[in-house]
Amino acid sequence: MSKKWVYMFSEGDASMRNLLGGKGANLAEMTKLGLPIPQGFTVTTEACTDYYDQGKTISEEIKGQIEDALKVVEEINNKKFGDNNNPLLVSVRSGARASMPGMMDTILNLGLNDVAVEGFAAGTGNPRFAYDSYRRFIQMFSDVVMGISKSKFERVLDEIKEQKGVKLDTELDADDLKEVVVKFKALYKEDMGKDFPQDPKEQLMEAVTAVFRSWDNPRAIVYRRMNDIPGDWGTAVNVQTMVFGNMGDTSGTGVAFTRNPATGENGIFGEYLINAQGEDVVAGIRTPQPITKLEEDMPEVYKQFMEIASKLENHYRDMQDMEFTIENGKLYFLQTRNGKRTAAAALKIAVDLVDEGMLTEKEAVMKVEPKQLDQLLHPNFDAAALKAAKVVAKGLAASPGAAAGRVYFTAEDAKEAGARGERVVLVRLETSPEDIEGMAASEGILTVRGGMTSHAAVVARGMGTCCVSGCGEITVNEEEKYFTVAGQKIVEGEYISIDGSTGNVYLEDIKTVKPEISGNFARFMGWADAARRLKVRANGDNPRDVKNAVEFGAEGIGLCRTEHMFFEEARIPIVRKMILSKTEEERRKYLDQLLPMQKGDFKGMYESLGGRPMTVRLLDPPLHEFLPSHEEDIRTLAAEMGVSYEELAATVASLHEFNPMMGHRGCRLAVTYPEIAEMQARAIMEAAVEVSQEKGYEIVPEIMIPLVGEVKELAYVKGIVVETANKVLEEKNAKMEYKVGTMIEIPRAALTADEIAKEAEFFSFGTNDLTQMTFGFSRDDAGKFLDSYYEKKIYEFDPFAKLDQTGVGQLVQMAAEKGRKTRPDIKLGICGEHGGDPSSIEFCHKVGLNYVSCSPFRVPVARLAAAQAAINQK
Amino acid sequence: MSKKWVYMFSEGDASMRNLLGGKGANLAEMTKLGLPIPQGFTVTTEACTDYYDQGKTISEEIKGQIEDALKVVEEINNKKFGDNNNPLLVSVRSGARASMPGMMDTILNLGLNDVAVEGFAAGTGNPRFAYDSYRRFIQMFSDVVMGISKSKFERVLDEIKEQKGVKLDTELDADDLKEVVVKFKALYKEDMGKDFPQDPKEQLMEAVTAVFRSWDNPRAIVYRRMNDIPGDWGTAVNVQTMVFGNMGDTSGTGVAFTRNPATGENGIFGEYLINAQGEDVVAGIRTPQPITKLEEDMPEVYKQFMEIASKLENHYRDMQDMEFTIENGKLYFLQTRNGKRTAAAALKIAVDLVDEGMLTEKEAVMKVEPKQLDQLLHPNFDAAALKAAKVVAKGLAASPGAAAGRVYFTAEDAKEAGARGERVVLVRLETSPEDIEGMAASEGILTVRGGMTSHAAVVARGMGTCCVSGCGEITVNEEEKYFTVAGQKIVEGEYISIDGSTGNVYLEDIKTVKPEISGNFARFMGWADAARRLKVRANGDNPRDVKNAVEFGAEGIGLCRTEHMFFEEARIPIVRKMILSKTEEERRKYLDQLLPMQKGDFKGMYESLGGRPMTVRLLDPPLHEFLPSHEEDIRTLAAEMGVSYEELAATVASLHEFNPMMGHRGCRLAVTYPEIAEMQARAIMEAAVEVSQEKGYEIVPEIMIPLVGEVKELAYVKGIVVETANKVLEEKNAKMEYKVGTMIEIPRAALTADEIAKEAEFFSFGTNDLTQMTFGFSRDDAGKFLDSYYEKKIYEFDPFAKLDQTGVGQLVQMAAEKGRKTRPDIKLGICGEHGGDPSSIEFCHKVGLNYVSCSPFRVPVARLAAAQAAINQK
Repeated sequence: MSKKWVYMFSEGDASMRNLLGGKGANLAEMTKLGLPIPQGFTVTTEACTDYYDQGKTISEEIKGQIEDALKVVEEINNKKFGDNNNPLLVSVRSGARASMPGMMDTILNLGLNDVAVEGFAAGTGNPRFAYDSYRRFIQMFSDVVMGISKSKFERVLDEIKEQKGVKLDTELDADDLKEVVVKFKALYKEDMGKDFPQDPKEQLMEAVTAVFRSWDNPRAIVYRRMNDIPGDWGTAVNVQTMVFGNMGDTSGTGVAFTRNPATGENGIFGEYLINAQGEDVVAGIRTPQPITKLEEDMPEVYKQFMEIASKLENHYRDMQDMEFTIENGKLYFLQTRNGKRTAAAALKIAVDLVDEGMLTEKEAVMKVEPKQLDQLLHPNFDAAALKAAKVVAKGLAASPGAAAGRVYFTAEDAKEAGARGERVVLVRLETSPEDIEGMAASEGILTVRGGMTSHAAVVARGMGTCCVSGCGEITVNEEEKYFTVAGQKIVEGEYISIDGSTGNVYLEDIKTVKPEISGNFARFMGWADAARRLKVRANGDNPRDVKNAVEFGAEGIGLCRTEHMFFEEARIPIVRKMILSKTEEERRKYLDQLLPMQKGDFKGMYESLGGRPMTVRLLDPPLHEFLPSHEEDIRTLAAEMGVSYEELAATVASLHEFNPMMGHRGCRLAVTYPEIAEMQARAIMEAAVEVSQEKGYEIVPEIMIPLVGEVKELAYVKGIVVETANKVLEEKNAKMEYKVGTMIEIPRAALTADEIAKEAEFFSFGTNDLTQMTFGFSRDDAGKFLDSYYEKKIYEFDPFAKLDQTGVGQLVQMAAEKGRKTRPDIKLGICGEHGGDPSSIEFCHKVGLNYVSCSPFRVPVARLAAAQAAINQK
Repeated sequence: MSKKWVYMFSEGDASMRNLLGGKGANLAEMTKLGLPIPQGFTVTTEACTDYYDQGKTISEEIKGQIEDALKVVEEINNKKFGDNNNPLLVSVRSGARASMPGMMDTILNLGLNDVAVEGFAAGTGNPRFAYDSYRRFIQMFSDVVMGISKSKFERVLDEIKEQKGVKLDTELDADDLKEVVVKFKALYKEDMGKDFPQDPKEQLMEAVTAVFRSWDNPRAIVYRRMNDIPGDWGTAVNVQTMVFGNMGDTSGTGVAFTRNPATGENGIFGEYLINAQGEDVVAGIRTPQPITKLEEDMPEVYKQFMEIASKLENHYRDMQDMEFTIENGKLYFLQTRNGKRTAAAALKIAVDLVDEGMLTEKEAVMKVEPKQLDQLLHPNFDAAALKAAKVVAKGLAASPGAAAGRVYFTAEDAKEAGARGERVVLVRLETSPEDIEGMAASEGILTVRGGMTSHAAVVARGMGTCCVSGCGEITVNEEEKYFTVAGQKIVEGEYISIDGSTGNVYLEDIKTVKPEISGNFARFMGWADAARRLKVRANGDNPRDVKNAVEFGAEGIGLCRTEHMFFEEARIPIVRKMILSKTEEERRKYLDQLLPMQKGDFKGMYESLGGRPMTVRLLDPPLHEFLPSHEEDIRTLAAEMGVSYEELAATVASLHEFNPMMGHRGCRLAVTYPEIAEMQARAIMEAAVEVSQEKGYEIVPEIMIPLVGEVKELAYVKGIVVETANKVLEEKNAKMEYKVGTMIEIPRAALTADEIAKEAEFFSFGTNDLTQMTFGFSRDDAGKFLDSYYEKKIYEFDPFAKLDQTGVGQLVQMAAEKGRKTRPDIKLGICGEHGGDPSSIEFCHKVGLNYVSCSPFRVPVARLAAAQAAINQK
């Protein structure tokens, strides 16, 4: 029943990534390729999950296998752990399936103790080096394994430097460092109540445990959530013979990329330091040399390095990010992996690799992370300017891009400032539909409340405007027009900058740069389009959105939210009067005034679409969202409507709901006020017929009835729509096919999709609401507890950002199957926020939807994700 | 492909109820028994649904079959339709599967026209009778078939009576009635723009159509909803040869029951009128004779009648409700059916029929409508006093029983008046948890807002207190302490009466009577208990509830809502301080104060339960429900807590939620504040252990974690509960089994029930919330549109009162199956409002739940419904 928990590097290969982690698999692969790799072994990711399953203990079986592997390493190196003459030292590093740089812990120089350090000094002939290594090990082990703060050790070191009257660590000699070691051990004993462990095996087991434990440290959890990495993957642990780049002038260490990770340019790119360890390169005390300089310093080593780099790139068929060390003139590779790169570099590398014959087009499509494309579509901060800037607060990265401008606190002020030509950042507690014009006039939007799917976030993404939401660290006083953060007060008109891709907030005017889209983009996206089966539409509510969407490659509009048209300044008073009408007759009067406006919008959209399809959703939100809440506004409206303030205020109050999200909205409005649906159906059909006649486009209007939970309610509203549509066609003496369908956004609709498909000609999954109802929490309120849920590892990701395939996905799949059973040619799409999320898109591909619809700026992301899903499935 | 749409009475029998309707099937059965039945035929219920499927038209095939059947009736009677000598006349009556008295339409004397009336006059030798029949037919046909108001005809009749100087219709002679007929036909022509139809076949088709159409009239829709009759059943139409009880002193008509429908006493009970038609018995102009008087008037007929009545009761093995007519000394039966009866009568009849050897005990169990038992458990109005009372408004029949008392408008006032010994009716806009003590002090509760599952309704049912909710016809001014209705103003202290079984409101002090429970009840319920498989528990939150529940036969508590204990006067300030605590330490301080109180309640409940099981739910509602909303209360609390008003007000405001039902509640509270769950688990376990030690009861506490949607959140909270429970057992040095389970009330919990069952030892279906989430509407807000939904036949019943088996039921079944797959011995129950609804209980039985839990006063209903479900399934 025993299982293999530990693999020597010589026992694995690159295909074993899930078991050995990325780093372990690549070390094994490089060993197999015969490259110079300090040997060692990998404790598997399964051992990590076993550690957690066993209540955070490493089983005896695993411990035994680690000890056995260690013996093999000793034999290979002909060194012994803890030997008093030339002892074996190892590094212990994490290595998960997916790269998580800096998230988990590393321990170097493990194996040193009071005896071994002497042997090490003798073996290397360098006592200073040996004691420096030992004191570094004590510090690292204490910090990483035992949780003793690093700064305590730094303080001891500083004291000794002061005593000796020196400034740099390097100015301390071997004896000084011996003293440091003594003091470090004393510090350890004081804190831990026991001696620093002298048994290297004990050190090793503790270190492995620490790496396993670090899988669940808070920054790793956050990183995983941001990068869709499941918590049950676990991390592997790599135990590797130490090599030293700091043994003199024929030693060194460095990192290099086979191509430029910023531009993608083909050519080695990297840097190294003579006589240094890896951490020195990072620390930035000495300035590293460009890698090409190595050719002068050590021509033979350089030649060997370049050969191996080229071999690795050819082998992995991707740009490589490599770490290496030169120990006394001998080159070792410590790591290789596919290098992280900017979006522009990713495109160039993908296209170049195809041109170089290294990849097929489909393979190239897999080389770019869909979410990265965002970088190409939004302004970013100038890299140099950003480096100097200080983050004062962090909110949610709600809509990508960077923005800098003067702060304003009301939509009205933002609008006016925008009209004056100012760059504006709108700062609000939260936004509401009334703010829409002010939002459109702003470079960026910052809100205190609200999550990734709050009004601000959704609208900003739709507009392609940068947005940081839910930034609870700032306190806004909208009335007195200032906000405070970190003890500072920022008043109207002062400059701030926000980064919607990271959530960072800065109190300064940081330079932004517009992205340049190269020819590589079009070529690359062409390959993606050729590979995908899913169509990609955009959500858009007006002709401007449609133009954006089409430019980004949308094949139609998947969701036109008609209510967004209702908020425009000229319209909202009529909308309000319509809502507050006491009789159908009165309501029809105001609807008649709205008809030409809605129709005009639809005509504009149909014109911009040039024959591409568009799904228009009938009025959806609860009516009170359109109503004024301030006394003053109600008084004005009452005067206009010729009723008393008291009466109107009472009517407004009567529309209050306990749970508006689950109240009188969606098709429920059309059931109680059929005349609203009638007006909207007429506006859509008249617009479609007129544009079709004027422009010759072939239009098949798709009219969508929202919030259906029961087939009879769909049938009722559909009856009104069909009757109206046919009347319009008759009046205009026109023939036109049109489709009536529904959103699937209520669990009961999914459960009874076979019935609903009898009436619905298409389904569009409204996964925002479906997620809310299926989980039983509203996205506006979930902020109060979701952080606790992430912290306690109950949820690993935000189900509003990434589709919950286990629960919500079950309903989507069920509805798709039931729908197709009743109506085999039913058209299926998704129009929730998930329509722009790559992992959700992959799910949509798998369950066989026809299209996804997302905000215009996400369309390229969706096109690429759809392509990757199709390629993955094969 | 032709189908049989029409059955002669001689072609059917009692088993064909679904196809022929109740009346049609019984007429066929009586024909088969050789009883004297005027012959005719039945158009099937399928023809009715076909009529609706074909867009409200009767197909040619059906019309043809009707005409063929008519020919057979002509042959049987040797009369011809529209004959100028002794023509055939028929009645046209509806007859659905379930009896719906008075809901649909009837037409008598069909077949008369200008020619036939003469033949009829000649044939009967009674021209006055013939013309009276004709004018009645014109009036009835015009009203029922054509929708011309009856009152127009009454006005014409009144004019003629005035001209003739007479007062009664009977004083008009044949010539007068001829004139009436002429004027009626003129009126018809004026209204319809065409002549009154002379073709009897046309009359018949129109009449059949009218009956089909009446299936969907508003009162029928309401009746069906109240009586759980599906809208797709349709009604059959019975066309029957007319017989006349108004042909002289050897004619007559009457209705009779084989046993007394009010008391159940065995013996004929009924009344009749000599020389009259059925409508005259109802009209009340002449006083009918008791049926026994018939023995004197017509001994032969009486003897025959009694023989047939006895034969029918023996045949149907149930008390019969019969209609009969005597035409010229010849007895005809027009209808028989199982008679409606009071609850007391139902019990007596069921028990007597067993004692008489006519029924087995199981058969007897099927003879009582479960909902009827309500009558036996609550006060009712004195029948005579009620007759004289005037209904001034109608709300929802939210909690059964009758109440009369002085009105009070605040819980405080109600409590004080109750303490003074007054009978109190509490009148509120809506109730909230703070009103609970005032509600307990009241005889009845009347609210303006809120549905069948509003706070007032749920709490009142739990207390067994009469409640009328959602009575929008009254306007309450709580501050000035009065309400107005129908133009009248009722101030504090005035008497009103309300009927929670009908929703009626009266402005007077109507005498109420307490129900008497006879020995029949216990005997009958014993048979029910023997027949059922489902256990029946009650929902209860305190020792008083438990006592009630046990008295009503509950086998345990299925849901103890711990939050209800939080609202008591002495506790709420501590609860508030606990909620508003800034630190865990502070919160624990207040929790420590609450612990002994909760524990005391649990001890009281465990003592009353005497070893029966109890499921205790951890804190569920959103926290702001406990908080004060008035400035004054916040100020008081702030002073007590030693914080500023502003600070406390801000904290209270920060707990505001957009959609509280989908907010920070249920197990989400335990995830963010584990110390609350800890305190509650401790209170439950300490209480259980102490009662078990003191009383020797064997207690297995069942701790229920609410609102779970994801197994990991259950695992987390369960971890806290288990740790605490084990600690208590250790402290008390006790051994006790306990179970931890969850509510299934969120769709995702049902969808992932296989995962959840890994942690949950029991499931309790919280179908209130599950219905809300599955339908996507909150019960508090649905009132705004549900009426439109009923009106437009989108919903046929209130899904909060009767479980929606199509949608919500699918989730329940799925969860039951998945749960059992993971954990075969998982205990499954339901604790939503549906646990007391008979049709929902039948569903619970079918999907194999272990128990249902309902309010204490519904326990007998649930026991009977569970028995009937078990018997039905066999």
